[in-house]
Order: sequence, then C-alpha cells, then structure tokens
Amino acid sequence: MSLLPPQILKTIEEFQKLPGIGPKSAERLVFHLLRSSRADPAALGQSLLTLKNQLRFCSTCQMVTTEERCVLCADASRDASTVLVVEEPLEVVAFEKTSYKGLYHVLHGVLSPIDGLGPEQLKIRELVDRCSSGAVRELIIATDPDVEGETTAVYLRDRLSPLVPTITRLAHGLPMGADIEFADQITLRQALEGRRNL
Amino acid sequence: MSLLPPQILKTIEEFQKLPGIGPKSAERLVFHLLRSSRADPAALGQSLLTLKNQLRFCSTCQMVTTEERCVLCADASRDASTVLVVEEPLEVVAFEKTSYKGLYHVLHGVLSPIDGLGPEQLKIRELVDRCSSGAVRELIIATDPDVEGETTAVYLRDRLSPLVPTITRLAHGLPMGADIEFADQITLRQALEGRRNL
Repeated sequence: MSLLPPQILKTIEEFQKLPGIGPKSAERLVFHLLRSSRADPAALGQSLLTLKNQLRFCSTCQMVTTEERCVLCADASRDASTVLVVEEPLEVVAFEKTSYKGLYHVLHGVLSPIDGLGPEQLKIRELVDRCSSGAVRELIIATDPDVEGETTAVYLRDRLSPLVPTITRLAHGLPMGADIEFADQITLRQALEGRRNL
Repeated sequence: MSLLPPQILKTIEEFQKLPGIGPKSAERLVFHLLRSSRADPAALGQSLLTLKNQLRFCSTCQMVTTEERCVLCADASRDASTVLVVEEPLEVVAFEKTSYKGLYHVLHGVLSPIDGLGPEQLKIRELVDRCSSGAVRELIIATDPDVEGETTAVYLRDRLSPLVPTITRLAHGLPMGADIEFADQITLRQALEGRRNL
C-alpha cells in the first residue's frame, strides 16, 4: 500500500514519460499543480485531451493543423514549386520568420534505425507522391546537420532525384555572431569549402 | 494568425505555468506528446483531470488522500501523541522511510510574506485545533532549515507552546557522508553546538 493516492502516482508516472522529466521532477510538477493558484491541473488536462482529438496533419505538407490543408498550403500566393523539407513542425515556424516564400514538407522525424525509425515511420511516402506530379522544381533539404539529418538528406536525394530537377541542402558554415577562435574544425572546413565571392 | 493551431498554443501555455518549464521546454514537451508512442496526451490529460476532483486533504493531518482520513491517521498502531510537522506531503513519504511511528501534520507551505503566504494560507489553524485537545504530547517541527522554515518553526513554537508540553526541532549538523572540509560554516557551528557524548 502506498502512502500517496493512486491518482497522484498515476499522474507522476505519466509526467515521467516526458523527455527530461525524472521521478523527482514529476513529483514536483504534480504537487505544484495541486497547490498552485496559477497552474491548473484541470486546464492542462483538458487542453491535452483536446490536443490529439482535434489535430491532424495537413494533407499536403504534413504540418499540424485543424483543417484539411494548413494555412500555408492554402495560400495561393506562395511559390508551390519550391518545397523545404524539415524534421519537425516547429522548424516551419522558424523558417517563417525568414523571407522564405515557398512551401514545406514536415517529415516528423529523421531516419534513425537505432530508434526504429525507417522511411515508413516518416512522412517520406507523402513527399514522394507530392514530387511525382512534377510540380515541385526545387527541394531544399533542411534536416539538422547531424548524423541522422545528413543520412536522411542523402536518402531523400537518392530517392527523389529522378522526380525533382533541383535538390539542394542548406548551407553549412559559421553562424552569425560566431567567434572563429572557438568554432569547431568541421564547421571551419565547411565554411572554407563553401566560401563565396565578396 | 498563428502558424500553430490554437490547441497547441493553449497546451504550450499551460505547460509554461509549471516550475522550471520555459517556452522552449513547453514546446518540446507538447510536440513530444504529439509524436511519442509512449507518452500519451490523453492519458496525462485524463489523470490530471481526475487529480483535483478526487483528491482531498486528510481531516486530521492534511496529507493528500482520497478518504476522510489518510492511511496513517486511520492506523491505530501509530503513536498519536507525537506529531511531526512538515511543509509538504512528499516529506511525509520521506519520513516514512525512517522508523518514525508517530503521526504527521502537513502545513502545505511555509510562512513567506513575500509570496503572500501568512498563517491563514497554511494549515496552521488545523494544527492549533488538533493540539487544543491535549492529546498531542510532543510536536516535532521539521520545516526546512532555511529562512522561511526557521521563521515558521519559531512562529509555531510561540503559538503552540501553551498547548503542547514538548516542542522540538530536527537536529542540525553534518549530513551522513559529508566532507567536513567542504561543509559551510553555519552547519559546522551547529554541528559543534549540538555535539553529543560518544
């Protein structure tokens, strides 16, 4: 028999399934919710319940949305011939702060055999279908510059080069504001290789 | 108009009300819940919804429970003449791992005027009522050894000494496994003052 009621233990257990939240943090969050006047377990609970029910993926770009097509795909002023491929929905939000005016495709992950993520677990079939129509003229692959991201980029290039005339990858190099003294050697090599006329 | 559906924004907002969770962590948690096969927003949502509905405070010791009295207060084999006063329910769980056989009283906080926490916001009236019967012979005050905890301990001693014959405070000193070289001076002074015959 436990000292804490099963409702509390169950909630602690559910919180522990979230990334970066261990047993102690989960306990702290649950007891904070019980005591706080600001955070409300019912409000958080209700919004979590409606989350999965009401959300779907855009039929074209797989962005999270509540409609059949997301606001970007439904916007006729966007350049539908350019598609930027990202790993996660939040990366679309990041690119929308730039002046990019094409469309997106959200993979919802990267190839990672160790985590059981193959091409079938990602939205790659949907991307192939989309490119088969011939309407996509350039595919910009914007997966993260790490092992899984690079592997996914190469896989997509090999699979989609028969369907899309131009397939590009985001530039690698020094980020703005970086201190060259502290840049790692791979970044420096890529910055040298990618040098441009001034 | 936001790129992310309002359901997601609302859930991110609710997560941000939890301690130690900022905007970026909240986003990460929500998108993890949407994608993960292990963590389930519906399960977490449901357990949060039942949390506040089904939980109550024990009528005697104010521990969280689902019954009128908690399992400890309902246990006739416990020594009801000794009451250990703690700040939070989880501290009861911690003391239950020792050989303590008395009962508890959970204050649900400490005196902290800066956070708007006075005696009325804590379960102090309930403790006074409980001691008024004369059944409590020793009150062990186990608030944290910090400014708020010490202030609360002194307040409780002043208020309850007419009602309870013995009021004690947990011993201060070196924790087990501590390295004296690195102990702070207040702890060392308290360890010296509290020295005992060997």
